[in-house]
Amino acid sequence: MRAVDLIRTKRDGGPLDRSALDWFVAGVTDGSLPDYQTAALLMAVVLRGMTPEETADLTDAMVRSGVRVEHTGLRGVAVDKHSTGGVGDKTSIILAPLAAACGAYVPMMSGRGLGHTGGTLDKLESIPGFRTGLSLDALRTSVATIGCALIGQTSDVAPADRRLYALRDVTGTVESIPLITASIMSKKIAEGIGGLVLDVKCGDGAFMKTVADARRLAESLVRTGELAGLRTEALITNMDAPLGRAVGNALEIIESIETLKGRGPADLESLSVEFAARMLVLGGVEDDLLRATDRVRAALASGAGIEKFREIVKNQGGDPHVIDDYSLLPAAPNRDVLTAPRAGVVVAMRAEAVGRAAVGLGAGRDRLDAAVDPAVGFVIVAPVGARVRQGDPVVEIHHRHGHGLAEARQLLEGAIDIADAPPAARPLVLERIQRRTTV
Amino acid sequence: MRAVDLIRTKRDGGPLDRSALDWFVAGVTDGSLPDYQTAALLMAVVLRGMTPEETADLTDAMVRSGVRVEHTGLRGVAVDKHSTGGVGDKTSIILAPLAAACGAYVPMMSGRGLGHTGGTLDKLESIPGFRTGLSLDALRTSVATIGCALIGQTSDVAPADRRLYALRDVTGTVESIPLITASIMSKKIAEGIGGLVLDVKCGDGAFMKTVADARRLAESLVRTGELAGLRTEALITNMDAPLGRAVGNALEIIESIETLKGRGPADLESLSVEFAARMLVLGGVEDDLLRATDRVRAALASGAGIEKFREIVKNQGGDPHVIDDYSLLPAAPNRDVLTAPRAGVVVAMRAEAVGRAAVGLGAGRDRLDAAVDPAVGFVIVAPVGARVRQGDPVVEIHHRHGHGLAEARQLLEGAIDIADAPPAARPLVLERIQRRTTV
Repeated sequence: MRAVDLIRTKRDGGPLDRSALDWFVAGVTDGSLPDYQTAALLMAVVLRGMTPEETADLTDAMVRSGVRVEHTGLRGVAVDKHSTGGVGDKTSIILAPLAAACGAYVPMMSGRGLGHTGGTLDKLESIPGFRTGLSLDALRTSVATIGCALIGQTSDVAPADRRLYALRDVTGTVESIPLITASIMSKKIAEGIGGLVLDVKCGDGAFMKTVADARRLAESLVRTGELAGLRTEALITNMDAPLGRAVGNALEIIESIETLKGRGPADLESLSVEFAARMLVLGGVEDDLLRATDRVRAALASGAGIEKFREIVKNQGGDPHVIDDYSLLPAAPNRDVLTAPRAGVVVAMRAEAVGRAAVGLGAGRDRLDAAVDPAVGFVIVAPVGARVRQGDPVVEIHHRHGHGLAEARQLLEGAIDIADAPPAARPLVLERIQRRTTV
Repeated sequence: MRAVDLIRTKRDGGPLDRSALDWFVAGVTDGSLPDYQTAALLMAVVLRGMTPEETADLTDAMVRSGVRVEHTGLRGVAVDKHSTGGVGDKTSIILAPLAAACGAYVPMMSGRGLGHTGGTLDKLESIPGFRTGLSLDALRTSVATIGCALIGQTSDVAPADRRLYALRDVTGTVESIPLITASIMSKKIAEGIGGLVLDVKCGDGAFMKTVADARRLAESLVRTGELAGLRTEALITNMDAPLGRAVGNALEIIESIETLKGRGPADLESLSVEFAARMLVLGGVEDDLLRATDRVRAALASGAGIEKFREIVKNQGGDPHVIDDYSLLPAAPNRDVLTAPRAGVVVAMRAEAVGRAAVGLGAGRDRLDAAVDPAVGFVIVAPVGARVRQGDPVVEIHHRHGHGLAEARQLLEGAIDIADAPPAARPLVLERIQRRTTV
């Protein structure tokens, strides 16, 4: 097989068959395919697309470029949730213990924050001692014993994806539904799960700005999951404004714990509960979404969820006392308040600018190898829909000696609209993409 | 400027401005731009295209990546012809001395054969002693003294093109009218010419298979030449069958000399005369194409053309006695004949297969660094339109101890059609793309 023939085939709009995609992924994995040929093929894929079969074959080849976890001895199939990335999205930290508390098995591999979106790993690592760098063996053991582990992607999972992603980042080839699908799904399939629910974010703070684009991605993800034998669903959820009230690593851990204690903001709680309930159904713990929802709500009310989170923290070396004493978490030395310039109703708090402001404070990163400050971030005092008087606090800024503060203020001021009339209501879940077939 | 931003702009169909293209070409030239980013941008150009302005800016940046010859002390402007590549096309070797004999200045830089098409340099180098590796200084001096030099591309001419071409070859990004245009025109503009006539080959043996495609390329070439201040024209010429009777390096030199002596095949002579006449007009030697044609025909009849060729051969170290004694040229040790399998009229002799058969004998190459055998090739005894009896010779095969012979026979048998009725006449010159504006 010759790389240039594959490139020409895709350039001319033709499909690549399974053996061609296997050969391509093998060449990417072992480094025998030069980056310039990979880059040319990636650009051809961006502009010519891929059929569902090609996307599934590419995903499968990427899974087989590394290890796929095999869970044994479970009383059911493992399940997971994946989000395409948002601002203030800490649902994983809430739903994983909730679902595990209800009997689901959740081997969750997450990523780090990049650009204006946060990452579950960064948030968890703000808990003193918490280790996300568990091996796949430790993941499997944790899932078998306590039902859940929250870890980072190990080097033996989909190594082709890591190489491809690094190249896509510098060659303008990130924006492709087949390539995004293969990247996400290869890592999830490698977890050894049998069910997956996807949170496809949509709106100002999301990669997909329109429902139509989000739907295309969601359908591609669900189709690819189904073709790989996973029971797969997707929710398209609103990411115009941050989810919940906290943005920033330790601040989001506090909000997650508060939510697990039943004191979280409504948007965050309802989304976490819905995802956890769907995981119970996809994992075969419950047959019916209504019963699953009741069960998750019961785990929330009884404290079973927060106790499962305590177990998870302990199991991964973290200090479980943070659950009862937030002063054990990193805290920023300084606080400032952004106040309302006028009276009215907060009608917009654009998530991308809020996310970028948080990166400026140090809460996120623009390059994957940069460090983050676990303490800094925002607490939204007056979220979208809140009525304020002139001078009322809108956002509390947790910063470190003014680092990034002026830029953050400017970004927030531009991100927040206050008007006389309340905003049009937009539901949190915009669309549900159900499984099409039973595999 | 960031490479990824340029790539994304082109990926999304936007134009690249002059400064972006300058930056890109500078990065390619000095090697600071990684090949994978160049490859991604090239693929985006292939699939998104370029405006005429972008193509002109890219061409100009590529010219400025190296040296542009300045001719001084000439009584007129230098002119050249360029062909997009065919089989049996030795017109350059005929028209350059003819035009120079009539007073034109012809600083011709040519290429080597690649794939099924031959190259002027390989043909000239079959003349014992002939050196094509002249410096640009030697080119300038030769043009000023004897009116013509026939040399290869020097390393200081459009170095960006060499790097880009090597990368395009292995990344499936050859097939792009803007990229082809910039590659051809940057090298021609660097010759320091003021006029250029282009032979855009069209048909089975050409890169462009249809007149519509050939027209698009011709228009792009002419437009880019005009925007660079060159008087530019293009002829779209038929390349369904080989041009003339000889295919192979020394065999084509013999046919070129025979044509300069007034004994060449009609198709080759008429095309060479038309190109030479157009060069006289574009170079300001004659105002009028009819008078220019008369003058070229007179140079052919008087022997001024062949004497100019003798001067050129001498000037470049070649043995001028080859002109009078073809036995001084390399000759293949063996000859075979392909005969007509039936009586009738030769209605097709597909040029691509003939070219590939010649490569198989050793006359051409599939990789630019491979050597060629100057002696082997074909003499077409019965060209398209000729009437044959069963068993009559159709093609004489000049080979070296059977190397490539069986494959060549098979290819030729598949390439030649003999029918009862003569073929529909197809003119040699299919279209003429004139200059649009006077710059």
